[in-house]
Amino acid sequence: MDSAPAREEKQASVRAILGTRSLAVVGATENSAWSVCLVNNLRNLGYGGHLHLVNPRYPSLFGAAAHPSVAAIPEPVDCAYVMTGSDAVPSVIDDLAAAGVRHAVLLTAGYGESGPAGAEREAALVAQCRRHGITIQGPNCLGFVNYREGTAAYALPIPAPLLRGSIGVLTQSGAMLLHLHRLAHSRAIGLSHMVSSGNEGMLDADDFLEYLIADPETKVVGALLEGIRDAGRFLELADRALAVGKPLVILKLGRSAAGRRSAAAHTGALAGEDRVIDAVFRQKAVVRVATMEELIETCGLLALGHRPRGRRVAILTASGGASGLLGDLAQATRLQVPDFSAATRASLAEILPPFATPQNPLDTTGLVVQDMSLLPRSLDVLARDPEFDSILVVWDAPRDAGLDPARTEARLASLAQAVAQSRVPTVVTSYVSGDLTDFGVAALLRHGVHFVNGMALAVKALDAAVGYTEAVQRRQAKGEYRWQRTAGPGSVGSGPLSEVESLRLLARFGIPVPVERVAHSPLEAAAMAREAGFPAVLKVVSPDILHKTEAGAVRLHLLTADEVATGYRELLESARRHSPQARIEGVLVARQLFPVAELVAGIFRDPQFGPILLVGLGGTLVEVFQDVVLRRPPIDFDDAVGMLGELRGRAVLEGVRGTPRGDLHAAASSLVRLGHMAVELEEISEADINPLFVLPDGEGVMAGDALIVLRGRERTASNGNPDSELSRGDQS
Amino acid sequence: MDSAPAREEKQASVRAILGTRSLAVVGATENSAWSVCLVNNLRNLGYGGHLHLVNPRYPSLFGAAAHPSVAAIPEPVDCAYVMTGSDAVPSVIDDLAAAGVRHAVLLTAGYGESGPAGAEREAALVAQCRRHGITIQGPNCLGFVNYREGTAAYALPIPAPLLRGSIGVLTQSGAMLLHLHRLAHSRAIGLSHMVSSGNEGMLDADDFLEYLIADPETKVVGALLEGIRDAGRFLELADRALAVGKPLVILKLGRSAAGRRSAAAHTGALAGEDRVIDAVFRQKAVVRVATMEELIETCGLLALGHRPRGRRVAILTASGGASGLLGDLAQATRLQVPDFSAATRASLAEILPPFATPQNPLDTTGLVVQDMSLLPRSLDVLARDPEFDSILVVWDAPRDAGLDPARTEARLASLAQAVAQSRVPTVVTSYVSGDLTDFGVAALLRHGVHFVNGMALAVKALDAAVGYTEAVQRRQAKGEYRWQRTAGPGSVGSGPLSEVESLRLLARFGIPVPVERVAHSPLEAAAMAREAGFPAVLKVVSPDILHKTEAGAVRLHLLTADEVATGYRELLESARRHSPQARIEGVLVARQLFPVAELVAGIFRDPQFGPILLVGLGGTLVEVFQDVVLRRPPIDFDDAVGMLGELRGRAVLEGVRGTPRGDLHAAASSLVRLGHMAVELEEISEADINPLFVLPDGEGVMAGDALIVLRGRERTASNGNPDSELSRGDQS
Repeated sequence: MDSAPAREEKQASVRAILGTRSLAVVGATENSAWSVCLVNNLRNLGYGGHLHLVNPRYPSLFGAAAHPSVAAIPEPVDCAYVMTGSDAVPSVIDDLAAAGVRHAVLLTAGYGESGPAGAEREAALVAQCRRHGITIQGPNCLGFVNYREGTAAYALPIPAPLLRGSIGVLTQSGAMLLHLHRLAHSRAIGLSHMVSSGNEGMLDADDFLEYLIADPETKVVGALLEGIRDAGRFLELADRALAVGKPLVILKLGRSAAGRRSAAAHTGALAGEDRVIDAVFRQKAVVRVATMEELIETCGLLALGHRPRGRRVAILTASGGASGLLGDLAQATRLQVPDFSAATRASLAEILPPFATPQNPLDTTGLVVQDMSLLPRSLDVLARDPEFDSILVVWDAPRDAGLDPARTEARLASLAQAVAQSRVPTVVTSYVSGDLTDFGVAALLRHGVHFVNGMALAVKALDAAVGYTEAVQRRQAKGEYRWQRTAGPGSVGSGPLSEVESLRLLARFGIPVPVERVAHSPLEAAAMAREAGFPAVLKVVSPDILHKTEAGAVRLHLLTADEVATGYRELLESARRHSPQARIEGVLVARQLFPVAELVAGIFRDPQFGPILLVGLGGTLVEVFQDVVLRRPPIDFDDAVGMLGELRGRAVLEGVRGTPRGDLHAAASSLVRLGHMAVELEEISEADINPLFVLPDGEGVMAGDALIVLRGRERTASNGNPDSELSRGDQS
Repeated sequence: MDSAPAREEKQASVRAILGTRSLAVVGATENSAWSVCLVNNLRNLGYGGHLHLVNPRYPSLFGAAAHPSVAAIPEPVDCAYVMTGSDAVPSVIDDLAAAGVRHAVLLTAGYGESGPAGAEREAALVAQCRRHGITIQGPNCLGFVNYREGTAAYALPIPAPLLRGSIGVLTQSGAMLLHLHRLAHSRAIGLSHMVSSGNEGMLDADDFLEYLIADPETKVVGALLEGIRDAGRFLELADRALAVGKPLVILKLGRSAAGRRSAAAHTGALAGEDRVIDAVFRQKAVVRVATMEELIETCGLLALGHRPRGRRVAILTASGGASGLLGDLAQATRLQVPDFSAATRASLAEILPPFATPQNPLDTTGLVVQDMSLLPRSLDVLARDPEFDSILVVWDAPRDAGLDPARTEARLASLAQAVAQSRVPTVVTSYVSGDLTDFGVAALLRHGVHFVNGMALAVKALDAAVGYTEAVQRRQAKGEYRWQRTAGPGSVGSGPLSEVESLRLLARFGIPVPVERVAHSPLEAAAMAREAGFPAVLKVVSPDILHKTEAGAVRLHLLTADEVATGYRELLESARRHSPQARIEGVLVARQLFPVAELVAGIFRDPQFGPILLVGLGGTLVEVFQDVVLRRPPIDFDDAVGMLGELRGRAVLEGVRGTPRGDLHAAASSLVRLGHMAVELEEISEADINPLFVLPDGEGVMAGDALIVLRGRERTASNGNPDSELSRGDQS
């Protein structure tokens, strides 16, 4: 991570680039599609600053005078957009230095993205820039759009107009900026900035995210990320976004092998272990989306500011088909669609035609075609029902002014008024996506009605908004948990520990492990059983008796000290009869466990995010179902309870088919402690407790077996992203 | 189900309604939005037949002469569209009868959808129609669009033009017809018919589906269904669609409680058990989709005719971000994105710029902006690679003619040519949805390039197309399995059977069950063990010894007859010592089982689809994970293997962590036999084998316990949809 002054300097560069008022386009030519697009964008979309075209080969370009070099420009230049071939770049940088230009955007490709030779070229470029005190965005970067100032310094054709709003978007894929812009544009969703970061030779995604999080005009930050370069910095930015109340909505690529292949080729960024990304995003209230449409719609909904406080949604449509479909779509999300209260049903019955059924989702029937007040009046009723956290309204936006423009306006106005007066966030959506006309979008914008593009996306965006508020509520309720590191047990060696050593280490962190008690007389056995607890189990300790149950060398379910003493005698007798030659070393005395369930709990180290805590249901079957939940430690008790609650098979812990409820409290405590161990002992590269027996409620948990692996030196050396750094970052 | 002549008569009615050339609009008025829309649609979208407006209150309407009644129309009328109030409907029907009009569409609402009184009204209406020999579409139905003849007899505003194509769509939700039309319209996807079926008083969804499946112009049939009224008929139609090679693509509502609530209110159709619907659709190669966008895009893709033969897709983009996203999106589907062969990589390397990486998904880089042949030439290379079943091309359609219209045309033409020449189905998609301009859509249509609306939908539609061809291939490979019913075991009684009776019934169908062998001497025990197989287990049979293991009353792992004889003696001795008073009735002799896994296998009866076979992984945990697969029996061996293969936890059967592979052959055979039993014995309402032990490969399976419930009379009476009917339908 950069030092604080270095970061402040980078922020100044981002500010200078995105806010340029005197921009030189170096390598401008009428023969390049990129150059034509860039100049058109800068001329036609509102940029009010100075534009200087630089190319030594032409006296004039695009109907304006051209300059042979940046140094030759007679006015001050605060930023350059460089689009020459890569061979010319070194001399362009020298030219910038000579002209005193300290900030540049580099479109030129053929650097790190193209292989080892390109990577060398990029390193040389960065070194040259550093020598001159120049900071670049790129290389291999298409540029940015500043919607506030109308600056579209971007080399693909941006459709007009630039609608100014409060969403800032960073994309590591330059071409996707265009498509994200178009999506937002077609939906009349306003933006503050869109930035593509290219190869990130100097300014990286985090620098731009940091800027957007700090930017007063930006209320929601979206990002399309191919990888996360510096996990510690990313986590810090996520914390900052949370602190200032700006949702971070991220489309993170690289879930699949094919997706990772692409990400690696593209910017060389690490794609990360996808489940770790999921876990970390969840902990930091980062909203993860799966498509570009979801990215824009979710940002659009969150930018409204009025966000649902819970999961219960009232659905209002004018079609039974739409109602049914929305009910089905909501089922796959965290949204809940409870039926209306009797009072709301009664109020609706007064408004609706007799052939309508007042239920959630509500179908007002096709009578809306005739009676345009039906839908707004129904909405008023739903908005008064205290049982709901949000309302989803499916509404057919006007496609044109229609035969009766005044009626079209009145219909819009009555909807807009009902939405504005609603007590809870009210999301209006079209029936299908891609169905809004220019007229419809403009009319909605004029009436201040935010619209989502189709029912499927509306449900996803509303679900994401609920997920965000829930994550924020979790954090607000208790803040993030910080573990105060103790003096620590010092070095615990290297390599794998034995089972006994592993269990001892767990015990030091307060995780219950079995106590070895070996008796040599009936009385001693009875005393040990009293200590261990009843019912007791006795087992002959002998290296020569392998199948102990068959040899009668095990006694179960002994309920009193007397039974233990008698059992001890019978056991030895039976074992001697069965195996007269066997060496008998004593009798193991333990409390008999009746676990409700077996968990696996463990720690591993993610190359990016450091220690990761894992819990899953144990046993062979569960391994097959891959039912595990991850968190980045340290975690507190509530987090641990949350982890157990996210297991798909959590019902096992709560008791199924008459089995008792497991001791969730003890299981959660052990996870917290395992998390402490992960943070405390940086030497641990892996730890597995398998099984972790969960006993009936009140009886605790017990580590059945454990394996802990400590890092050898060779492993530490190969670890590019030192965990200690991350840990410090998190606990500072 | 109707008789064959009754069905033929209904088909004639559907033909007459959809093909009307002389239509009377009864209840036309300039004061109703529906009436205005209907007349506009009929006048402006290509309908070339006669249009008669009927309303006794007006001499003229919409600038044309109006008639006081249908009987007063001087020309022959072949269909009426009735939009009067429900009070007037009986006299309108009489008027139709008087005029000799035998077919009508009824918009009027307030019938079955509005409650018991409305249902009575609907029954009276249908009775009246039957008396007059009139067949109606509706009531509470918005009408239809016949794209071939330009007849938009539909009461909401349909945007022009009607693009004629080969997709026919039925919707039980009338308003959704409009939105499905608009979706297809905005995408330049041509249609043959769209029909809304309303309350289905006389003509139901199946009648229209039957028509569309038979219609020569229709190649793909889509449907939005709220419920399936007659499962037997639906299955027959699905078979017919499969036989004539027309994909059936269905958006079936009612997955969720909220969705079912809506469906029930809307048309009163049964929503069905959703997992049964999934299973039946899968068996019949019916493509199930989740949104209206998927419905239209999937139909559009399937209508191209050229369908992928397998899962392997080559992906071509001009953006690393798009490549990564497509790789990720494909991962959630059955599509596979394997990397290119060395030969393809070499060919691509010759074409691509040096900074591109020739891998799948392929990013040609932004150089496409400058070199417009880059993408088509790359496509040519991919199209020659025999490793792929389809190609997905992400391509930015022109938004307008651009600065250089000739270049825009040339760019389109070169893409169109490359797509046309591709050996495998080649799907072109925009980057994001809702991003196509009118110019772009028209240009693509002109060049014959089919386009999908955004990457997320493209992946879903391609996945659905692959699913369809796989289902067809399964059926083509072997046809549907038909079980020749035997004479059958006759009545087996009613109510629940005991465990012993249940196991005996399973054994009659060839499902292995444990044999009860009780020995009374060491020699007898040894003989029985030889019969049952080794290793043997001995267990004392005594009503007085409850905890047999603790009492030493069990012997495991006896490998020879001698060990069994010795074990017998030891067992009795030990049991007598432990419980001197216990009555001992003998010693149970059995082969000791070492099951690899436990399954649950069962039968239940769906109220719509009749007998349904179920298999799941057994044990408490699996109950928690709800990992079950359903099929409608009879099934054959391949189907059964397929069922086991669909279990999420199938790895358990194949041996995990060193456990041996289970006897999948025997498990599948038992499922086939259980299916036979379900078909053969209609008295069985439920059967559960739990557990069905799966032994190591070659050792078979064994029903551990079973419960079979036969239907009592009271249950048969309450069953509205007799299963025997369905079974006959399926086996004819």
